[in-house]
Amino acid sequence: MKAIVYHGPGDKRWEEVPDPKLIDDTDAIVRVDAVTICGTDLHILKGDVPTVTEGRILGHEAVGTVDQVGAGVKNVAVGDRVLVSCITACGRCDYCRTGSYSQCLGGGGWILGHTIDGTQAELVRVPFADTSTHPVPDGVADEQLLMLADILPTGFEVGVLNGQVQPGAVVAVVGAGPIGLSAMQGSQLFGPSRIIAIDLEPQRLEAAKKFGADVTINNRLEDPVAEVMALTDGLGADVVIEAVGYPATFELCTELVRPGGRVANVGVHGEPATLHLEKLWIKNVTITTGLVDTSSTPKLLKLIAAGRIDPSPFVTHRFAMADFIDAYDVFARAGETGALKVVLTP
Amino acid sequence: MKAIVYHGPGDKRWEEVPDPKLIDDTDAIVRVDAVTICGTDLHILKGDVPTVTEGRILGHEAVGTVDQVGAGVKNVAVGDRVLVSCITACGRCDYCRTGSYSQCLGGGGWILGHTIDGTQAELVRVPFADTSTHPVPDGVADEQLLMLADILPTGFEVGVLNGQVQPGAVVAVVGAGPIGLSAMQGSQLFGPSRIIAIDLEPQRLEAAKKFGADVTINNRLEDPVAEVMALTDGLGADVVIEAVGYPATFELCTELVRPGGRVANVGVHGEPATLHLEKLWIKNVTITTGLVDTSSTPKLLKLIAAGRIDPSPFVTHRFAMADFIDAYDVFARAGETGALKVVLTP
Amino acid sequence: MKAIVYHGPGDKRWEEVPDPKLIDDTDAIVRVDAVTICGTDLHILKGDVPTVTEGRILGHEAVGTVDQVGAGVKNVAVGDRVLVSCITACGRCDYCRTGSYSQCLGGGGWILGHTIDGTQAELVRVPFADTSTHPVPDGVADEQLLMLADILPTGFEVGVLNGQVQPGAVVAVVGAGPIGLSAMQGSQLFGPSRIIAIDLEPQRLEAAKKFGADVTINNRLEDPVAEVMALTDGLGADVVIEAVGYPATFELCTELVRPGGRVANVGVHGEPATLHLEKLWIKNVTITTGLVDTSSTPKLLKLIAAGRIDPSPFVTHRFAMADFIDAYDVFARAGETGALKVVLTP
Amino acid sequence: MKAIVYHGPGDKRWEEVPDPKLIDDTDAIVRVDAVTICGTDLHILKGDVPTVTEGRILGHEAVGTVDQVGAGVKNVAVGDRVLVSCITACGRCDYCRTGSYSQCLGGGGWILGHTIDGTQAELVRVPFADTSTHPVPDGVADEQLLMLADILPTGFEVGVLNGQVQPGAVVAVVGAGPIGLSAMQGSQLFGPSRIIAIDLEPQRLEAAKKFGADVTINNRLEDPVAEVMALTDGLGADVVIEAVGYPATFELCTELVRPGGRVANVGVHGEPATLHLEKLWIKNVTITTGLVDTSSTPKLLKLIAAGRIDPSPFVTHRFAMADFIDAYDVFARAGETGALKVVLTP
Repeated sequence: MKAIVYHGPGDKRWEEVPDPKLIDDTDAIVRVDAVTICGTDLHILKGDVPTVTEGRILGHEAVGTVDQVGAGVKNVAVGDRVLVSCITACGRCDYCRTGSYSQCLGGGGWILGHTIDGTQAELVRVPFADTSTHPVPDGVADEQLLMLADILPTGFEVGVLNGQVQPGAVVAVVGAGPIGLSAMQGSQLFGPSRIIAIDLEPQRLEAAKKFGADVTINNRLEDPVAEVMALTDGLGADVVIEAVGYPATFELCTELVRPGGRVANVGVHGEPATLHLEKLWIKNVTITTGLVDTSSTPKLLKLIAAGRIDPSPFVTHRFAMADFIDAYDVFARAGETGALKVVLTP
Repeated sequence: MKAIVYHGPGDKRWEEVPDPKLIDDTDAIVRVDAVTICGTDLHILKGDVPTVTEGRILGHEAVGTVDQVGAGVKNVAVGDRVLVSCITACGRCDYCRTGSYSQCLGGGGWILGHTIDGTQAELVRVPFADTSTHPVPDGVADEQLLMLADILPTGFEVGVLNGQVQPGAVVAVVGAGPIGLSAMQGSQLFGPSRIIAIDLEPQRLEAAKKFGADVTINNRLEDPVAEVMALTDGLGADVVIEAVGYPATFELCTELVRPGGRVANVGVHGEPATLHLEKLWIKNVTITTGLVDTSSTPKLLKLIAAGRIDPSPFVTHRFAMADFIDAYDVFARAGETGALKVVLTP
Repeated sequence: MKAIVYHGPGDKRWEEVPDPKLIDDTDAIVRVDAVTICGTDLHILKGDVPTVTEGRILGHEAVGTVDQVGAGVKNVAVGDRVLVSCITACGRCDYCRTGSYSQCLGGGGWILGHTIDGTQAELVRVPFADTSTHPVPDGVADEQLLMLADILPTGFEVGVLNGQVQPGAVVAVVGAGPIGLSAMQGSQLFGPSRIIAIDLEPQRLEAAKKFGADVTINNRLEDPVAEVMALTDGLGADVVIEAVGYPATFELCTELVRPGGRVANVGVHGEPATLHLEKLWIKNVTITTGLVDTSSTPKLLKLIAAGRIDPSPFVTHRFAMADFIDAYDVFARAGETGALKVVLTP
Repeated sequence: MKAIVYHGPGDKRWEEVPDPKLIDDTDAIVRVDAVTICGTDLHILKGDVPTVTEGRILGHEAVGTVDQVGAGVKNVAVGDRVLVSCITACGRCDYCRTGSYSQCLGGGGWILGHTIDGTQAELVRVPFADTSTHPVPDGVADEQLLMLADILPTGFEVGVLNGQVQPGAVVAVVGAGPIGLSAMQGSQLFGPSRIIAIDLEPQRLEAAKKFGADVTINNRLEDPVAEVMALTDGLGADVVIEAVGYPATFELCTELVRPGGRVANVGVHGEPATLHLEKLWIKNVTITTGLVDTSSTPKLLKLIAAGRIDPSPFVTHRFAMADFIDAYDVFARAGETGALKVVLTP
């Protein structure tokens, strides 16, 4: 089959590789019907994720059709259309049994396109298929489903749920890329009184309005702290969601939050940040971090099936898998191309 | 001044009474700008609430302007436009300090139009004015505010919050009168996947659609248990809200709920119900009851001010206070007149 | 092998039956090292549980040694010492993935000694062995472990956690049998200010003192409502736990609870109760029911291993399995014999 | 009267000052029967808290007798014995109405001995007396009560509740001074499986054993990360409580916590810390900060009255107020003197 293979920093190739085979009896082999590229894949290609070694097939998001299953797979059958989640769950360890799949101790967690071969391929081996794939209801399009593989549950769990957005809350989201936008979309499920989007790029702030932002702040032009204080009687936002991943944006979040409020970090960070405990110790704030568990995926799937949320607007570009390298190029130049999520199909 | 005075079962009169006077230094006298009638007032007039004695001015919902304040009132000043809440809170007892104002031990709780004179009058004395009135932001109409005096927080707190509606939930509401409708409107703040309205009256079910119901069931014509099971893979609803107040409707709720689900009783009951513990003991269900605390009023007010929820559609009829008796008549014949809430102004 | 077989109401026999065999590849066969009898077994023998059919081996609590495992069993190996939980969990359905094992939709729930053969035998087949047995740490005795098969997590989850016992709470437990006592023991983990035990039998109230009760009320001699009100400034208990299973005891619980408090039903009920909604609607109470999920078993096991709780005092009588009929007799006449839990070993 | 007056860094004097007078009608004047010194007072004397200006009477903890009350004080009367809490609450602002008294917007928060004159005096003016003092039950000694003015609720709320200690949890407390010890004592109310105390001083670690520590680690001699990992199967502690206030101790906490665990900062910090987001972003941790609200004080008082917790062992030294300067000296040299809390009486 063909797949996107990582050959070291800056070097990815769409090339012929052997088909995956069942290894454990709980594995499934899934034929990929739709796949996308994540910001994390770009990080890997910069060499930022040393646990990804040469020869690794990238990708951790897919919708596909089950091609083979091991003898221990009970809930998924050949021919089933399934969502392949970015998180793999053994389903048996203490973390999995409390829904914390991201911290699986039994061989799962984020492994696809990381420590085992991933989804940017014609076929992919999915370990623990019963607890790591989701059967797909009729009437939900592949493109909608694909947004559930990572981005939607990430914004929802790590941003909205960790941030404990509540009816009436003022929510500030720092970063209006795909993850920030999904946090905005997810926030709307809890009836906030106001969503404030903060970014450096005008076109991203325009996009934010479509995903629920009431107020946009370009922090190249305006002082976001002053603006947020002006909107909140000088107190700050109830919930601040970090969706960038730099020390400066994290530190901004801790300035935007009101006493008693919450900062939910979603961004992937490569460096430490400064935590101003000399100001924060007295402010009763809560700061959370997290990799997505995808425990909310069944709920979000119900909401898409019911027409309550529609992630279709995330998809800005479509490609055939044969043009995977072009897709990477468009996605990497999101600032110019306006790309949010690109979808590739066979 | 003039007021609606209760003179025993079936006997209410719009008549001249002495103006209220400040009694405690934490009292305010409020001039009533808009007032409404509650289903509870009809119960009182049937003689169902023996704690209401002859000579009592009825009413526990109002928007008005502060006319006088006692020396101990700090946060409210003469001339302020305020919402008078159905619940009075001393603000100092153990219940008040945890936001359970309905159970106030310091002289509050539901007292207006019950154990002290109420709001269906030109002027009303409001005890503990600092903690029992809400200052009103500009840009919110009296009619919208008036819905916050009782009905909106009741549906939200006693129905939606007690029921713990969550994103993706299936919510069944039994009873599509004003309280049931407010529970439907409030449920939408938590992104349910489906709201099911159950009532006997076609016009109420029509109204339900405007307040968020996706599915309506006329339980005169259809079996609601069978219908709800068909919509939920045979499991039942995640949350069932009782908004009627009869044994039969409560018992229906316990049949509609899924294992692990919640029944939130909002209805005012005059008789005991049968609790089928022989079926329910093993089903891990939670049943809640409650009088509203109005602790959510500030949040709901923010949401109205932000345009996120609009209770205006509750107001179906408007009267001058001089026509209070007519207003009662129209409200009491809601089945015929289609009345949801009636609003009276000077 | 030999086992206790149900032959219809009133008829149980310790008799020779075929050894169990592996059926599904996720099954294990466990050799029983210690087993006990539950009050539910007595209910079955009265004919109260019609889903138990003739020929069924009874029992849902055991500690044993793994004898055989199916090919799909990963976490448990032949020779392992394990706790067999009263609840079987498929580990994959929506309920299991949120820890609600009692409501398992994939073939689990309470099945042992109910819809499949149970643990009162020399060998028992345990389905879904990976998610339905618990590996046992060194240094914890079989008798302690055996209390974790049902009674301890039942009192803890269905009584204490559902009742939301908090530091400083006043907890009233109606019924001082094994389940009520385990609720008292579990309550102590949350630092209540006072535990009140209510029962008809003086010796049970004596036992209650050993399991944490500060105050005992014999409701044959005293009025429990008056006593509890006297102890709580006339308000009632914060948490009331029903551990009997009759309409009268449930109704008593709803009289003992303070406004805003919680009633946690643990008792197994055979008949409906009367719910006095005409009094309760306004009291903001929460009523919960439940079959144990055993999701707390790993935590409780840690607490026993750490010496923080010791369930040994539950074991009042010991028998060889060959004397199983005698053990049933002593357990059934608990009023006379003072039996709490009886333990049987090969 | 006489009082401890701050005259700039390093300069405190027990000197004659004018008696306090009622200013607002919600004030009370309280005659101090017992008072203590807080670590924060030492910080002030180092000049670390610039909001404390010269001439300020220090102290924010006292037990006393009401001497005068303003006309607006309803719940407290002359002659009442009361606890004066370190936090003053207006009782009416949005923060106070949700129990977040530390963030009071109406003139309260931490003001005693900070922005207004404090309790290290013969008399003290307490604003908002109804909501800032606690009536005291018979049978609880002044010394026990005094520990409720700050230290016990601080350890409990900011350490234990923010850390969400649960039955079975492994709790690591960094810093075994009075606050760390109170966090250990409070943790025991939630049935942890193990409490680990970490400090540099052997005598503090000895004290920790009396307040509930099962394991002590001297981080001058041992590597606390290695030790904690060895005790937790390599995962880390469920809850880590910072009770020192230095960047290094905070950073240690973030290394000790398990994935999915919580770090509760209680320490008062004067400088920023480094937050290793490059490691933490993926670990699903929660970090909380906080000044105590004292909302738990009534519960803790009940527990002391019931004999469930006894803070008496905190009191290591006793002085007459005339020897206040000596008391400061003993408290400041805690390393040598072994002082935990000193109590001064008239």
